[in-house]
Amino acid sequence: MDNFTYYNPTKLYFGRGQIAKLDEAVPRDGTTLLLYGGGSIKRNGVYEQVREALGDRTVLEYGGIEANPTYETLMGAVELARAQGVTFLLAVGGGSVLDGTKFVAAAIPFEGEPWDILRRKAPVREARPLGAVLTLPATGSEANPVAVISRRQTQEKLAFSSPLVFPRFSVLDPATTFSLPPRQVANGIVDAFTHVLEQYLTYPAHAPLQDRMAEAILLTLLEVGPKTLEDPEDYDTRATFMWCATMALNGLIGLGVPQDWATHRIGHELTALHGIDHARTLAVILPSLLRHQRQGKRAKLLQYAERVWGLTEGPEDDRVEQAIARTAAFFEQLDVPTSLRRYEAVTPDTVEAVAERLKERGFYPLGERRDIGPDDVRAILTASLAA
Amino acid sequence: MDNFTYYNPTKLYFGRGQIAKLDEAVPRDGTTLLLYGGGSIKRNGVYEQVREALGDRTVLEYGGIEANPTYETLMGAVELARAQGVTFLLAVGGGSVLDGTKFVAAAIPFEGEPWDILRRKAPVREARPLGAVLTLPATGSEANPVAVISRRQTQEKLAFSSPLVFPRFSVLDPATTFSLPPRQVANGIVDAFTHVLEQYLTYPAHAPLQDRMAEAILLTLLEVGPKTLEDPEDYDTRATFMWCATMALNGLIGLGVPQDWATHRIGHELTALHGIDHARTLAVILPSLLRHQRQGKRAKLLQYAERVWGLTEGPEDDRVEQAIARTAAFFEQLDVPTSLRRYEAVTPDTVEAVAERLKERGFYPLGERRDIGPDDVRAILTASLAA
Repeated sequence: MDNFTYYNPTKLYFGRGQIAKLDEAVPRDGTTLLLYGGGSIKRNGVYEQVREALGDRTVLEYGGIEANPTYETLMGAVELARAQGVTFLLAVGGGSVLDGTKFVAAAIPFEGEPWDILRRKAPVREARPLGAVLTLPATGSEANPVAVISRRQTQEKLAFSSPLVFPRFSVLDPATTFSLPPRQVANGIVDAFTHVLEQYLTYPAHAPLQDRMAEAILLTLLEVGPKTLEDPEDYDTRATFMWCATMALNGLIGLGVPQDWATHRIGHELTALHGIDHARTLAVILPSLLRHQRQGKRAKLLQYAERVWGLTEGPEDDRVEQAIARTAAFFEQLDVPTSLRRYEAVTPDTVEAVAERLKERGFYPLGERRDIGPDDVRAILTASLAA
Repeated sequence: MDNFTYYNPTKLYFGRGQIAKLDEAVPRDGTTLLLYGGGSIKRNGVYEQVREALGDRTVLEYGGIEANPTYETLMGAVELARAQGVTFLLAVGGGSVLDGTKFVAAAIPFEGEPWDILRRKAPVREARPLGAVLTLPATGSEANPVAVISRRQTQEKLAFSSPLVFPRFSVLDPATTFSLPPRQVANGIVDAFTHVLEQYLTYPAHAPLQDRMAEAILLTLLEVGPKTLEDPEDYDTRATFMWCATMALNGLIGLGVPQDWATHRIGHELTALHGIDHARTLAVILPSLLRHQRQGKRAKLLQYAERVWGLTEGPEDDRVEQAIARTAAFFEQLDVPTSLRRYEAVTPDTVEAVAERLKERGFYPLGERRDIGPDDVRAILTASLAA
């Protein structure tokens, strides 16, 4: 096990009716900026619950944060917050609203061009405090210090991380997610599942507890994922899915072990270029990447095959292939495609563009063994186009 | 799943050489009080590492905190800290030193008799900040807000909890535990294993992820427990055991599910009356308690039998009994007795005394179903005496 530092101070209010806890969690003084997305919170009752809990606090609003939140949109919130002396940020929505709010929190007091936080990894020395009401289980943003922001002008999608943008608290009420479209729920399941695999399907590192905890999340997602799509208002199933998504990326399962994240790096470029949903980029890349990297990941793929898919018989190569095929089949069962062919905008030119863009960003070599170069990315994407 | 609130702000520095991180973690200004136990840290090199990392900070010391730390001893530290204007507390030791330091932290600014924090659940409104260097994996105190304190005068052992006594940070270097006596390591394994069972062996509550995470810790303890006793200087095995002990009681596996803790409540009385090691009280009570409560715990006992012990065949009653018997055999394999007969000071009078003391404290009814009364405690202890 490698050395690690773990710190996660986000307070989680989980369960029915927990939005009422905003009254104890949000500061009474100062000015709170409520950030949200396309307005679904005004149709599903979440907005009313939030405003009721906030009572007579001074609250400004900034809506319209899109999926894959953009610098262009978010800078509007930064300007508003600066002009109005906003002292606390409350994100109400899914991972995009939360990620966007983290950027706004860091950008408000930032001296200079805030995009440098993403593009040049400029250090975040200060941030406005923020809290969140999560309405879409998927990204884990509710309990981690990471945000992924896009820029329309340059078709970029980049991540930053700072302990200063941990939410002070997050409210997770599974009932607020009952009205989500099935596509978003399916995306969330694939996103959470892939978050676990990025931290688990690497190579053995003498960390059996982290392994078993990762397998615990995977097995639970396999169990509740299809169920919660079929019966979206079954509270316990939805609650379990929501908790899995948080645990998948709150840092715990990745402590002291190698991590991959190549699927995410490649996927971000596909979203930036073609606007494909984040989770859907993961689903088209992951199976091809696992096949391409099967030698380096062999020991963990066999463990995954055995403990998650119950595959213990037959030649090892067959078990590895079966485990990958079943992973893809699970995504397809959720109506999330695993072939790039399914996206018309994607062509062989896309393959080259992605391989090149990762080079420009200095992201090579990718993967837990740092052995994925531009040719590997081309091969992985080409295989997905042919899948 | 029940509603829950989760908050755990302790920063963990885990791994070899991490004591050096005290230089970034301990405030430079003010006066730090270093609290420790019987002096083993001065023999195994930990003390030197700590003092070196603290550099030229103003540091006072208070040693001699005993196993089952006592009010009488700890009030000495409180008086010293008050007189010297101590601003930060650094616990260096096992769970007893950590628990004791939490009490000192809360007692320093407490107005009135600090024992009321334990005896009358007087609210903790303020506490000195504290950090820890853990040298004995067992209690989980390094990453939770709970402390158990004893009082010699009245032969009491009581717990309190306050978010104000979360360690600001804890350093966990597995190498500092290599020199522990086998008895303490074995106690730690039993303690961690029982912490998991107190939160897991109750009744199903639609919380499959919490269940699987609990099983992950149990399976890992079964795997590494005997190994780390045989080969105490194998770093990875010891590191895994140490991480299991933290994860067993940092709050995560108990979120939104029923919890038992009757074994602990009964065990504390045995320690208070006869000075039996904490973990050893758990080992003598748990098997008898599980047998006594087998009907109410039946569904989870069958799940435990299947997933932890691989018992899937034969009559259900047999599987339940086998799972309990194997749990006891695991403890015995670690040289931790599971019969009260093994403690000469314990007599039928003890049985009566424990049953009565729990009544005086207002602790009845015990257990996740609140169905354990004085007669049940008598039956459980009598069964252990006959085991």
